[in-house]
Amino acid sequence: MPTLVMKFGGTSVANLDRIRRAAKRVGVEVAKGYDVIVIVSAMSGKTNELVGWVNETSPLYDAREYDAVVSSGENVTAGLMALTLQEMDVPARSWQGWQVPLITTSAHSQARIEEIPPENINAKFAEGMRVAVIAGFQGISPEGRITTLGRGGSDTTAVAFAAAFGAERCDIYTDVDGVYTTDPRICDKARKLDKIAFEEMLELASLGAKVLQTRSVELAMRYKVKLRVLSSFEEQSDEAGTLVCDEEEIMESNVVAGVAYSRDEAQMTLISVADRPGIAAIIFTALSEGGVNVDMIVQNISEEGRTDMTFSCPTDQVTRAEKALLEIKDAGELNYAELDADTNVAKVSVVGIGMRSQSGVAAKMFKVLSDEGINIKVITTSEIKISVLIDRKYMELAVQALHDAFELDKAA
Amino acid sequence: MPTLVMKFGGTSVANLDRIRRAAKRVGVEVAKGYDVIVIVSAMSGKTNELVGWVNETSPLYDAREYDAVVSSGENVTAGLMALTLQEMDVPARSWQGWQVPLITTSAHSQARIEEIPPENINAKFAEGMRVAVIAGFQGISPEGRITTLGRGGSDTTAVAFAAAFGAERCDIYTDVDGVYTTDPRICDKARKLDKIAFEEMLELASLGAKVLQTRSVELAMRYKVKLRVLSSFEEQSDEAGTLVCDEEEIMESNVVAGVAYSRDEAQMTLISVADRPGIAAIIFTALSEGGVNVDMIVQNISEEGRTDMTFSCPTDQVTRAEKALLEIKDAGELNYAELDADTNVAKVSVVGIGMRSQSGVAAKMFKVLSDEGINIKVITTSEIKISVLIDRKYMELAVQALHDAFELDKAA
Repeated sequence: MPTLVMKFGGTSVANLDRIRRAAKRVGVEVAKGYDVIVIVSAMSGKTNELVGWVNETSPLYDAREYDAVVSSGENVTAGLMALTLQEMDVPARSWQGWQVPLITTSAHSQARIEEIPPENINAKFAEGMRVAVIAGFQGISPEGRITTLGRGGSDTTAVAFAAAFGAERCDIYTDVDGVYTTDPRICDKARKLDKIAFEEMLELASLGAKVLQTRSVELAMRYKVKLRVLSSFEEQSDEAGTLVCDEEEIMESNVVAGVAYSRDEAQMTLISVADRPGIAAIIFTALSEGGVNVDMIVQNISEEGRTDMTFSCPTDQVTRAEKALLEIKDAGELNYAELDADTNVAKVSVVGIGMRSQSGVAAKMFKVLSDEGINIKVITTSEIKISVLIDRKYMELAVQALHDAFELDKAA
Repeated sequence: MPTLVMKFGGTSVANLDRIRRAAKRVGVEVAKGYDVIVIVSAMSGKTNELVGWVNETSPLYDAREYDAVVSSGENVTAGLMALTLQEMDVPARSWQGWQVPLITTSAHSQARIEEIPPENINAKFAEGMRVAVIAGFQGISPEGRITTLGRGGSDTTAVAFAAAFGAERCDIYTDVDGVYTTDPRICDKARKLDKIAFEEMLELASLGAKVLQTRSVELAMRYKVKLRVLSSFEEQSDEAGTLVCDEEEIMESNVVAGVAYSRDEAQMTLISVADRPGIAAIIFTALSEGGVNVDMIVQNISEEGRTDMTFSCPTDQVTRAEKALLEIKDAGELNYAELDADTNVAKVSVVGIGMRSQSGVAAKMFKVLSDEGINIKVITTSEIKISVLIDRKYMELAVQALHDAFELDKAA
């Protein structure tokens, strides 16, 4: 029988009623003839509660114990989902990560999936079981300890299962009904996309559109897993939600697929750094070792052998960045006059695979912002994305203006 | 290094503060030079919440999924306890049942422990780990599914570990400070016992004194594990609590060690049953197959080939007993005029190994009750126990009168 993977996030399994509703969706697919692999998250709020206990107990916790504690929420929903399906006369059973086994690296709390041997579950499908319910987010290390995959890891679990079982599709049920051209909360013309290319989704995900975990999209792209994002709170047809797929499967698309933004960005400027070879390496090695995720980097024109170096990083990493740079200053490895941190900025990006073949997108973007009187502080581009850092107060305006200018409210 | 097992029940690990307090107790034993195996229950209330969800989801649940769900509470406390100990610089790690592995039968939700191979944990002790924290109540079946040991199963886990590791003692930390001559809530002269024999504890446990799970006492008796019951809410010395031990270790003891009671008892009477060979076998086979735990049995004198058969069972099994007996009546296997159920009764028992060598205990008990005007409905005895069924309204009075008469407020 063909296999389908269905993943239900925390809000979709928040209580027994919602688990029942999710189980009914599963029943519909079973009735169509699919063998279904269901991936469940913990009931919403449960993982946060467990993480809170761990942090309160031990701020610098042993990640192996962290994983043992926080993985328990998914075990509860997996069992309850299996029981709910059984009540509906759908043959089902639950698997915890170690039972599958879903084998991961030993990088606790951010482990990567190494292998999912399909034999155990396939043997049960062969015996007539129709649904395998898998506790998401968790696996087992080569040392036999429980691992977790990092926040949002259940999306990655789902895609990995879809790849391992050659599933026809991986449906991600969540509290939104698909991927939008931009956030409907700040732009009322935002339109749901029927399809989006992996590369575009990847850029949107990494830019802060929280529908899917970035790693799950990477994995889906690598293994060509068709990924569908849809709402668990609406009646669904086969065409519901947004399909994330290979660009070849998308006949027509706008040049720009979506506008993304992130408030959670700080602009850091090192003023008057010596402009000599190797200085960038010193700075960004120190930041990387200090656990700072640097996003954009700009180096200004040099004057009299000194330059200003600007970069952006998540707001909550500003303290870490300051500490890392002060350490190398104190150690005499780097000299700078001042370190300026501006957390009053936001990043706005346009994303679209059409940019590859059509020029002028950047020019148009800059003109739109300029017409609105918005000053651009930093620019970065990739093949299918242009991002700018602007004053935070203009963020909504910028998103709306760009959405209008690129006519994202109209389908291609 | 000598090994000690310490078990903490749900109220002793009810929140992070209490886990910290329990961890300090563990630290004291580590400082004395013990390698410690800590068995933890779920935070109080957690298991009930999980059981509630399972029952609401599926009244006739698949016990394998029940076990997967309800075992998760212990995983949380095991991880948190290990983290707390690490914070106190005590080298510790957690083990879930399947990791040990604690191998059980496949009788889900009431599995029995088959084997605890000590190699994995001993290897860690050899490396310098000082505390192994074990999630109680759970194990793994030969099929690789999670099992649970039934309510109170963490006591049994603790004793089984003490036996497997040849522990010097198994300390059960709970919310009472030991085993009493009777329930202090209904008799203010109740006295804490310093020592009690396994056999006596076994009778008291099975009679409803809820300090220890019966199976854990059986196991301790079989493997001669010294068991100590003590409070996790008081400062402790080495002599605190009550030691449950071999009777040889008790120099002097009262003839009667304690008075136990149970409100949870119903008296069932089959009126006018044919008095012929095999009829008792038919009745009690049917009850046993119907899942009824029959306790006391009395058969009245036969008149004209008919007799009345009285037995007692837990109150919540009355419906089951009625169903089982009606089925064999309908099937023509048994004929009776009426089935009378009286749930307004209570069982009161006196227990003591001294009864073996001293006669007259039964006579004294019956006289005490008679002097108080209490009518005895059913009597059963064992070598070290006499139980009577009486009207429930006299229960407290009976307990107090017997406690006085046998002078249980005075040590031997």
